[in-house]
Amino acid sequence: MAAYARIESTGNPRVVVIGGGFAGLELVKSLKHAPVQVVLIDKQNYHTFQPLLYQVATTGVEADSIIHPFRKIFGKHDNFYFRLAEVQHIDTEKQFVETSIGLIGYDYLVIATGATTNYFGDKEMEQNAVAMKSTVDAITLRNTILCNFENALQLDDPEQVNSLMDYVIVGGGPTGVELAGALCELRNHVFPKDYRELDFKEMDIHLIQSGGQLLKGMSEEASLKSLKFLEELGVKVWLNRRVKSYDGYTVILDSGETLKSRTLIWAAGVTGAPVPGLRPESVLRGNRIQVDVYNRVAGYNNIFAIGDIAAMVTDENPQGHPMLAQPAMQQGELLGKNFINMLTSKPLQPFKYKDQGAMATIGRNRAVADLKLFNKEIKTQGFFAWLIWMFIHLISIVGFRNRLVVMLNWCWNYFTFNSDNRIIIGNKQENIPVADTITHKTIT
Amino acid sequence: MAAYARIESTGNPRVVVIGGGFAGLELVKSLKHAPVQVVLIDKQNYHTFQPLLYQVATTGVEADSIIHPFRKIFGKHDNFYFRLAEVQHIDTEKQFVETSIGLIGYDYLVIATGATTNYFGDKEMEQNAVAMKSTVDAITLRNTILCNFENALQLDDPEQVNSLMDYVIVGGGPTGVELAGALCELRNHVFPKDYRELDFKEMDIHLIQSGGQLLKGMSEEASLKSLKFLEELGVKVWLNRRVKSYDGYTVILDSGETLKSRTLIWAAGVTGAPVPGLRPESVLRGNRIQVDVYNRVAGYNNIFAIGDIAAMVTDENPQGHPMLAQPAMQQGELLGKNFINMLTSKPLQPFKYKDQGAMATIGRNRAVADLKLFNKEIKTQGFFAWLIWMFIHLISIVGFRNRLVVMLNWCWNYFTFNSDNRIIIGNKQENIPVADTITHKTIT
Repeated sequence: MAAYARIESTGNPRVVVIGGGFAGLELVKSLKHAPVQVVLIDKQNYHTFQPLLYQVATTGVEADSIIHPFRKIFGKHDNFYFRLAEVQHIDTEKQFVETSIGLIGYDYLVIATGATTNYFGDKEMEQNAVAMKSTVDAITLRNTILCNFENALQLDDPEQVNSLMDYVIVGGGPTGVELAGALCELRNHVFPKDYRELDFKEMDIHLIQSGGQLLKGMSEEASLKSLKFLEELGVKVWLNRRVKSYDGYTVILDSGETLKSRTLIWAAGVTGAPVPGLRPESVLRGNRIQVDVYNRVAGYNNIFAIGDIAAMVTDENPQGHPMLAQPAMQQGELLGKNFINMLTSKPLQPFKYKDQGAMATIGRNRAVADLKLFNKEIKTQGFFAWLIWMFIHLISIVGFRNRLVVMLNWCWNYFTFNSDNRIIIGNKQENIPVADTITHKTIT
Repeated sequence: MAAYARIESTGNPRVVVIGGGFAGLELVKSLKHAPVQVVLIDKQNYHTFQPLLYQVATTGVEADSIIHPFRKIFGKHDNFYFRLAEVQHIDTEKQFVETSIGLIGYDYLVIATGATTNYFGDKEMEQNAVAMKSTVDAITLRNTILCNFENALQLDDPEQVNSLMDYVIVGGGPTGVELAGALCELRNHVFPKDYRELDFKEMDIHLIQSGGQLLKGMSEEASLKSLKFLEELGVKVWLNRRVKSYDGYTVILDSGETLKSRTLIWAAGVTGAPVPGLRPESVLRGNRIQVDVYNRVAGYNNIFAIGDIAAMVTDENPQGHPMLAQPAMQQGELLGKNFINMLTSKPLQPFKYKDQGAMATIGRNRAVADLKLFNKEIKTQGFFAWLIWMFIHLISIVGFRNRLVVMLNWCWNYFTFNSDNRIIIGNKQENIPVADTITHKTIT
């Protein structure tokens, strides 16, 4: 058996938190003054503000401005300990987690591992598609887009050129919609300046949605308006279509149509990312972990799950809460309070989701928002919604400096129509067989 | 033979520029209105502002803020064509360069490939040391530093811990001096907040200089004061020492002393990075290419070399000009003018180096500067020099947005003593065998 990782005991009960997403972050925040030792385990040393990943991918902001190191965020928490490690297994008997740096014992365990891209078992898709869940995913997509154009310059065959310039986005949720809008803005305003040798009338952006409406879960107004906005921008929206197969070049739809693209972005669904070791009964379909109204994992007293990974199945919520930032943050914050209640033997507060609404932005000056404020429903679409979207996202970004940098980027890009971040550095999608298909022309 | 890469001919004579460093950048700028087709070849799609690489490595600024994409910089140049490619060979007979994307023919060729790290043939050093010449080098060093601390947390043996916390910088030029100063500031102000479990009194920063003085090439005042500043900050400066060997753990000096460090940063010298295919007589020692006062390569009429790679050997300059940004930029700008002179059969202007002085910064509020203004020599050290250093570097960064972001970072870090960029993403030095040496302690 592996040895224990090195973490000095502080005498206080140890709360081990797996994952520093929105849920884990709020939990650690609310434990600042609690008489516990907080050990956060994450395989990255930074928190990612996922709602802006699509802007990293589309050169709107630099990655560094939407990620924030945990040790910086919690530098002032005396009870905070961070460990950069991958969690492999939970031993609920002996109360430790097995990690890449050794065993880490716990008194209380909180699973906040979030969600991961769901390819629904399609290995070919997983191999050939680009995902959009992590910072590295977003940087990979950015580099892939820029390399596609550089490569397209070397091709003669129009179909080959188009396959590098066209994009297929699968999934009509916020990520797919926002990505499609941002790509169109780049096509309309930015890329033609960079690649004068390419004809951007030939660049198509396809958005494929299995259902009959975009932004499922938002109001019908939002859904219809987002469709209208996307079509105004020039996105080709395919409703009621599924991708049957994608070999890295040819996209075959269930309706029989085919598209050619070397870059398919998969934003069609997520699934829980549980850690092995829990009793199978506690893991529901969608790989989410069943929890009670205190986020306690069914069948355990000292193990909790919060955020996307947690399915709080109740009569009014047979599906659990939506896998979004808001319920995650609210659950994290409440669980922190409930830990203090536990330790002071006060009664626990059950979780009640305060839905404040949802929003999505579609390019410049356009967004859709369903807001719930003071028990009022405010539905708005267009410029005002876009301003609200920017404001809400700016104040939500962790780190004041990050807020300034993002705002600076936004103002800059808004007025110049010209982002500065079109840089190829780091990973790119390697499985695109461009080189072999390149045909050269002799200059004269 | 490989086929030609695809670049449409514009009818105008084609000037192929290899490398978009300071020299290549100024050349392309000054050719903006020239009746030529400018083809810039670089293996990156961005220009790097090398003087601030050390700040990327020490988490002072994000990489994106000191690099700038070529297509953005020259988007308004009608005669500008960029190709992302590696140059493999020059055929001076048939007048083309062989690249990773095919052959590229030229009427005029300008070699601006700059310099590369010089390990003086020491393969073991090349394998185990971290370099500081490129953006990727700087990011690699940043990630390595941060991972070192994360790994140190898992170790018991004090020598093992120290080997991860101690740094050996080889080379007392600007890069070495500025890096040592920045690392000390991090040790004194930033890292102790992040890693409360580590004892930073144990963190040593060694600077090793083969000669008897730092910042060779600057004034004696600058050299002495920089030594004083570094020692005040706590850097252990070793003068008149050379590294005999480094196996990734033990540094052996020629004087017999040994140091233990898992991170040795090699800033001890550069050598020209010429492209194969030129006649051997044209390549001098140090791999620099011999050019006349018009930067024409000895033995050719239509091949030029500018910047670090060019050695303009004259009676007053038996060594050629120093391998610095200033002569590179001045040569690039003049060559642009001379191309226009050539095409309008006007006489060429010989190059005259206007030395405006040199400067280096050593942590907060401290810098040394030897300035040459209005034929006056101004030598200053300390706070005023530091202000000048910041001003000069800020206005030199390419891209107004980058300037704002860098200034924002500097102000932020200056007043908060707390940079935001302590992020592990991208490459890290992989050949540090930490894991195997880790010994675990059992928690109680």
